[in-house]
Amino acid sequence: MDNRPIGVFDSGVGGLTVVSEFFRELPGEEIIYFGDTARVPYGCKSKEIITKYSTQIVNFLLGKNVKAVVIACGTVSSNCFDYLTQRFDIPMLGVVTSGAYSCCDTTKNKKVGVIGTQRTIVSGAYEKIIKELNPEISVYSKACPLFVPLAEEGWVENEVAEKTAQIYLRDFADYGIDTLVLGCTHYPLLLSTIKKAVGNINIVNPAKSAAVKMKELLAQKEINSQNEATNNHTFYVSDNSGMFEKICNLVLGKTYEAKVIDIEQY
Amino acid sequence: MDNRPIGVFDSGVGGLTVVSEFFRELPGEEIIYFGDTARVPYGCKSKEIITKYSTQIVNFLLGKNVKAVVIACGTVSSNCFDYLTQRFDIPMLGVVTSGAYSCCDTTKNKKVGVIGTQRTIVSGAYEKIIKELNPEISVYSKACPLFVPLAEEGWVENEVAEKTAQIYLRDFADYGIDTLVLGCTHYPLLLSTIKKAVGNINIVNPAKSAAVKMKELLAQKEINSQNEATNNHTFYVSDNSGMFEKICNLVLGKTYEAKVIDIEQY
Repeated sequence: MDNRPIGVFDSGVGGLTVVSEFFRELPGEEIIYFGDTARVPYGCKSKEIITKYSTQIVNFLLGKNVKAVVIACGTVSSNCFDYLTQRFDIPMLGVVTSGAYSCCDTTKNKKVGVIGTQRTIVSGAYEKIIKELNPEISVYSKACPLFVPLAEEGWVENEVAEKTAQIYLRDFADYGIDTLVLGCTHYPLLLSTIKKAVGNINIVNPAKSAAVKMKELLAQKEINSQNEATNNHTFYVSDNSGMFEKICNLVLGKTYEAKVIDIEQY
Repeated sequence: MDNRPIGVFDSGVGGLTVVSEFFRELPGEEIIYFGDTARVPYGCKSKEIITKYSTQIVNFLLGKNVKAVVIACGTVSSNCFDYLTQRFDIPMLGVVTSGAYSCCDTTKNKKVGVIGTQRTIVSGAYEKIIKELNPEISVYSKACPLFVPLAEEGWVENEVAEKTAQIYLRDFADYGIDTLVLGCTHYPLLLSTIKKAVGNINIVNPAKSAAVKMKELLAQKEINSQNEATNNHTFYVSDNSGMFEKICNLVLGKTYEAKVIDIEQY
């Protein structure tokens, strides 16, 4: 038993979709969330700079005495998971590995699609892990850089969102995939538009996969909380931009206060 | 006479549209450009964080011995111009003031529109300066947050760009404006789509206004360069993301090499 909190971090506020799944799956676990709203987005940045930023964030979370860390950012999870797990001695879990496992469990015809930010797709991380788990699976990947700003603008179901989804996702029909992985935490906000564009296939939300995987990890290491339920969560951001409040309401259905910290000093 | 370079900075690579106008208007002046590609975009961030970032950047440029500084970023120019000019003892010029002057010279019916990032529009900077110059002018403002990611995706004339421009700009027709200010350095890349959406009105590009104003300022202070022409320009970025090269080719029609520096230490 270990009542210390779980640290969850993201490049911005998209990781709140991961927090939402943790609330559902692990209601007794306290969450400490950090969103790097000052330096968001990570998806168009280099691996070097993302490694530097995520190292600062894990240092910050360790200072908050977390018992485990969840990388809720697809870009960090794709590019820096190996580095961070080697550098820091704490149970750590990324959305990408979790999503890749779910994807392999879900596909029947062994043809899957992955969508994410430019950096996530270029990293090839989903493809690499999926192929390690099952080399027979074919993976088709596509960067969809406009989905994040569309979600943040609140344009999740209008004509622009639909047309954008059609352009980005039209090739998946030709590939005959039966499963699509939402490889960026913002994308669940566009779920209905994405479903409309790809038709009747399975959608994997790695946020949900990560919550399920964390439940197993805590049980296995016997570090789960004694509490049945808690609402003792803490949210930090690196900039008070108003975006946290907006997406928090949209994703968690209520407002939490976010404290602003200077992440550059960690 | 002063052959030292002029410093130009932006939150990212959009400021290259300003450099382009400087090349045209002031071919003898050396440019030192800094683009904060690691922390781009600024448009959705708070005034406090943007002030901190732009102070670091001006410190960096002063270390490069510049004779004047151009704030090529609409967001910084809107929010931090007063702070930066008070803090630093160097001739400084922002795109917003320059654009506001041009706008007042251009409008006939005294009804103008301003488009920009969320932060530029919320600051009300264009409106404030335009009304100081001519209180009879009515200003209609609109944030267009998707224009920057659309330009960076290269979707400047497709159906998504056109539909987005229609949604953002449709109200301007009702206001009867005769002049529209492109209050963000990326927006000139979408010029033809914006023109299509607003019809036959005047478009003010503050990048061009800033270059013309700098020419006057240098002559007035007698610090213009002796050179008739130079190609001795230097480009710095805070992250090597690939975006610099892409937009550099698009805007300047050739590739310059950009050096990566750690801006957080300034």
